[in-house]
Amino acid sequence: MASQAVTPQSVDFSAWYNEIVYKADLADQSPVRGCLIIKPYGYELWEAIKGGLDRRFKATGHQNAYFPLFIPESFLKREAEHVEGFSPELAVVTIAGGKELEEPLVVRPTSETIIMDAFKQWIQSYRDLPLLINQWANVVRWELRTRPFLRTTEFLWQEGHTAHATFEEAEAETRQMLDVYADFAMNDAAIPVIKGRKTDREKFAGAMHTYTIEAMMRDRKALQSGTSHNLGQNFAKAFGIQYLDPNNQLQYAWTTSWGLSTRMVGAIVMTHGDDKGLRLPPKVAPYQVVIVPIYKNDDERAAVEEAVTRLAKELAGAGIRLHVDRRDGVSPGFKFNDWEMRGVPVRLEIGPRDVEKGTAALARRDHPGKEGKQFVEQAGLAARVRDLLDDVQASLFRQAAEFRDANIHDVSSYDELRQLVEQGGWARGWWAGSGDDEARIKEETGATIRCIPFDQPGGGGKCLLTGQAAERVVLFAKAY
Amino acid sequence: MASQAVTPQSVDFSAWYNEIVYKADLADQSPVRGCLIIKPYGYELWEAIKGGLDRRFKATGHQNAYFPLFIPESFLKREAEHVEGFSPELAVVTIAGGKELEEPLVVRPTSETIIMDAFKQWIQSYRDLPLLINQWANVVRWELRTRPFLRTTEFLWQEGHTAHATFEEAEAETRQMLDVYADFAMNDAAIPVIKGRKTDREKFAGAMHTYTIEAMMRDRKALQSGTSHNLGQNFAKAFGIQYLDPNNQLQYAWTTSWGLSTRMVGAIVMTHGDDKGLRLPPKVAPYQVVIVPIYKNDDERAAVEEAVTRLAKELAGAGIRLHVDRRDGVSPGFKFNDWEMRGVPVRLEIGPRDVEKGTAALARRDHPGKEGKQFVEQAGLAARVRDLLDDVQASLFRQAAEFRDANIHDVSSYDELRQLVEQGGWARGWWAGSGDDEARIKEETGATIRCIPFDQPGGGGKCLLTGQAAERVVLFAKAY
Repeated sequence: MASQAVTPQSVDFSAWYNEIVYKADLADQSPVRGCLIIKPYGYELWEAIKGGLDRRFKATGHQNAYFPLFIPESFLKREAEHVEGFSPELAVVTIAGGKELEEPLVVRPTSETIIMDAFKQWIQSYRDLPLLINQWANVVRWELRTRPFLRTTEFLWQEGHTAHATFEEAEAETRQMLDVYADFAMNDAAIPVIKGRKTDREKFAGAMHTYTIEAMMRDRKALQSGTSHNLGQNFAKAFGIQYLDPNNQLQYAWTTSWGLSTRMVGAIVMTHGDDKGLRLPPKVAPYQVVIVPIYKNDDERAAVEEAVTRLAKELAGAGIRLHVDRRDGVSPGFKFNDWEMRGVPVRLEIGPRDVEKGTAALARRDHPGKEGKQFVEQAGLAARVRDLLDDVQASLFRQAAEFRDANIHDVSSYDELRQLVEQGGWARGWWAGSGDDEARIKEETGATIRCIPFDQPGGGGKCLLTGQAAERVVLFAKAY
Repeated sequence: MASQAVTPQSVDFSAWYNEIVYKADLADQSPVRGCLIIKPYGYELWEAIKGGLDRRFKATGHQNAYFPLFIPESFLKREAEHVEGFSPELAVVTIAGGKELEEPLVVRPTSETIIMDAFKQWIQSYRDLPLLINQWANVVRWELRTRPFLRTTEFLWQEGHTAHATFEEAEAETRQMLDVYADFAMNDAAIPVIKGRKTDREKFAGAMHTYTIEAMMRDRKALQSGTSHNLGQNFAKAFGIQYLDPNNQLQYAWTTSWGLSTRMVGAIVMTHGDDKGLRLPPKVAPYQVVIVPIYKNDDERAAVEEAVTRLAKELAGAGIRLHVDRRDGVSPGFKFNDWEMRGVPVRLEIGPRDVEKGTAALARRDHPGKEGKQFVEQAGLAARVRDLLDDVQASLFRQAAEFRDANIHDVSSYDELRQLVEQGGWARGWWAGSGDDEARIKEETGATIRCIPFDQPGGGGKCLLTGQAAERVVLFAKAY
């Protein structure tokens, strides 16, 4: 609601982010440590993210289901790496119905274990494969340091869980779902993510391979925005998921999991936002257009209202999501600032002179001020607005891609890497180091290998750290 | 998946229900006490329920938001009746991040307290009212006896929470949302619910008034299917929700809450199901039509497949949700039984002779056997199927309404009431008794007052129990 000034990104990005989240009315703090209240405006953004993903999941043959919130503690312990990865973060129910529980129940930090236990029952034959399940759910990880949307004790997400007959099919699924995430991120959220594989040190607890989409925020830090895991036969063996193949031989299944969370809201804020507030890509914006009626007296108001009602109906009829800001007692200027803060892609202003002349003013959020404003005929407005929205969508993506490309630099030595990370930016360089080398670099610079990008230069080079022959480049960056 | 015989309703309704839930593939048992796994087919049904309600909530001006899963124990204690109502059912997190918590966290059994704490921050002036929020969430109540969908430890629901300036506005909202529930139940789920008010003994813990929609199951027991509560100023006072009115006077707000859960899935099963399985109303059915190709050899199969693909595309293009059952290795008869078990409203059969003659067979689930089967031209199939689906929808509602009306009887003495409850059915009678009287009747007969129906005969009568002058009739029944 508020339109007060915000700490500029250049002064303190972290302060800027926190202020935007609350001032743009996306969320509120809660009395529960590390938990966020997602307010209606933030939740509508999440609903748009859900809608965009759910459509893609269903188009690729997945079905939604729902599994229990609580997981018996013993389940978590069955996959050794998995429990080691998650046990410091667990919230545990020990009392229920007034009594101490015999076996404590863990509030799910992720659902591999409880879902694999069900898969064991559901899978008997190769005819039951592939099994393609997704769950929309809340999960809990007791994080020490939390930040709105980026890292919260409870968060909302989807987690896909699938089982396949072969390694190749599981691998293809893992890659397909990474592509689905990237397609959503690029086309809907206008975030030019980079696809790649995690190193063994950075992969998911219990996975063979973890793939990731990494996005560059406006402070040049990386945000892991969605991950897809080929779990090999690790969970199938831990949970006894076996099927009879066409030759009547018992085989272990191959499983995958993949997740994207409310963290994506933070990714959208930090990829596109500026010092005036959010800038929302039209495809995910709760309101694509806000209409601000402008008048000085009741006569003008009545005339303007007639045009506003008519045009709002026309735009809504064309499938455009819009809001008319009819608030009393606040000036048009206040409303302009307020909707700029909330990042509505297009503002439509209508005043008494517009009513007389059959015109309206359109202002685009991605180019604030006069250069982004145009005066148009009311006739044919819906088509014009639709075009403008497409243009804003493309422009936000282009701006983010340019920013990203300008801030990825090739480095060929540890000194260069160190220097670049200090200045801010991502370092791309040949790599043949070990997990211990990664740990040392993290310790010394704060940067981690975000991914081994799919997009490789080819050939080979010298490892930036060890000087040994390297077959691939990696991306180093500080990350959220 | 299975098509085995089911225990008939008339033999053991409870066994019938449990078998249907699992055999129709709606759900599976979980290793967590009282928690259900909602399988894809059941979850799609829930998604249809969610969609139908969410559309209506938004059309009446409500916005979705999300509040923490965990509630500090102290919050729950602020409203005295509320904590008394819920404390025996709470699941409590005492350990998190490896440490004992200073203040235990309750897993929400409902969110009045945590949401009212937020409302206190969000409401300052009469301009902030009404505040109309809904949340889709999971909640946990540690129930002693659980049954799939009807009463589970964890369940999915929506809970609306609103704040208003006056009692009248809160009351109007409470009634409006009951109407929304009834509209959904009758028009989408084809359940002829009865709207009414709960007695003080049966109302929600902390409410002034509780309104309910009550549905009659096929065993003539009642199922409370959705409730809407006028909370008066009870929660506003407990949480300090005050606003400045237009005269600058500080006033307490008036709040409401209303909820409908995955229990609705059980209501649909037990309202419409028969001894062959589910019968799903087309408006909420995951698949409205199943197409079963019929062939004996590969040539026939190819010819049939061509027609099936073409007709499936035509029906899908007309917005009809459908599934083509192309399973190998099971007979058409097996498929018919399987889809009857799963309650798909219309089955479309296409065999080689249909391909030659340009025809198809349509079978409606609400009239099994020959009487429900018709042979139709392929030309104009989509329109014909659409009409048939409308007809099935109306027919399921009519059958349920007739069953309900045939099983509600007027009673004018406690003996008649007792006898009727024993035989099965709902008893309608004049009532001027006390809460203690209700308790005694429950003790002696197992029946409770389901509601004081809005639809009253008018005038007055003699209380069936006390003989005193009574102003209203009530409905007594055994209930889930």
